Amino acid sequence: MILRHMPNQQAALDNVFHALADPTRRAVLQRLSGGPASVSELAKPFEMALPSFLQHLQVLETSGLIRSQKAGRVRTCEMEPQPLATAEQWIAEQRALWEGRLDRLEGFLKELQAKENGDGA
Amino acid sequence: MILRHMPNQQAALDNVFHALADPTRRAVLQRLSGGPASVSELAKPFEMALPSFLQHLQVLETSGLIRSQKAGRVRTCEMEPQPLATAEQWIAEQRALWEGRLDRLEGFLKELQAKENGDGA
Repeated sequence: MILRHMPNQQAALDNVFHALADPTRRAVLQRLSGGPASVSELAKPFEMALPSFLQHLQVLETSGLIRSQKAGRVRTCEMEPQPLATAEQWIAEQRALWEGRLDRLEGFLKELQAKENGDGA
Repeated sequence: MILRHMPNQQAALDNVFHALADPTRRAVLQRLSGGPASVSELAKPFEMALPSFLQHLQVLETSGLIRSQKAGRVRTCEMEPQPLATAEQWIAEQRALWEGRLDRLEGFLKELQAKENGDGA
């Protein structure tokens, strides 16, 4: 059975994969997977105007991949593992379907061969 | 050590995640993970003009997620598992980093607790 994903799950996957489709956003996630960081720490490695960088953070936050909190004048970001797990699971499902098909093909070929050898008559 | 991905790997990940960020393209991949199909078979479930659908196939083909072959008047598409595996691996790396951090935090908390109980003095 092919799982039919609900419309809001589809939108969630759209947002997560869109967020992952950019090297700056992936680098931010990679940094945050090691622990929380402030916006200025996160921005430091990039030669990019702050407003552009903040837009990338906004895309990550919209997708649910990160969340942020402001304490005084410092905004701290952290990774949320759930949307990444959802994306990983979607990919794993397709791989499982594909591998299942290869296994069935292999089984079918073995059966044919057995018949040719006269074992399956 | 954080793995630094090479520029062409970054572009490959950009293309794959961009291709996955659309419900039509994900549905096509889901169909192809069960086996090859012709373009007209693939287009059938979608209420979409053929040129728009062909653009989606083009995005999938550019990302390497599918490849197609023409025999006579029929173009057949099939899934290529490698780019999907690359995307899955990138996600798994971030999860491993994140889980490693949680494990270290847990270890640190246990150590603190042991010291408080006087075992670690």
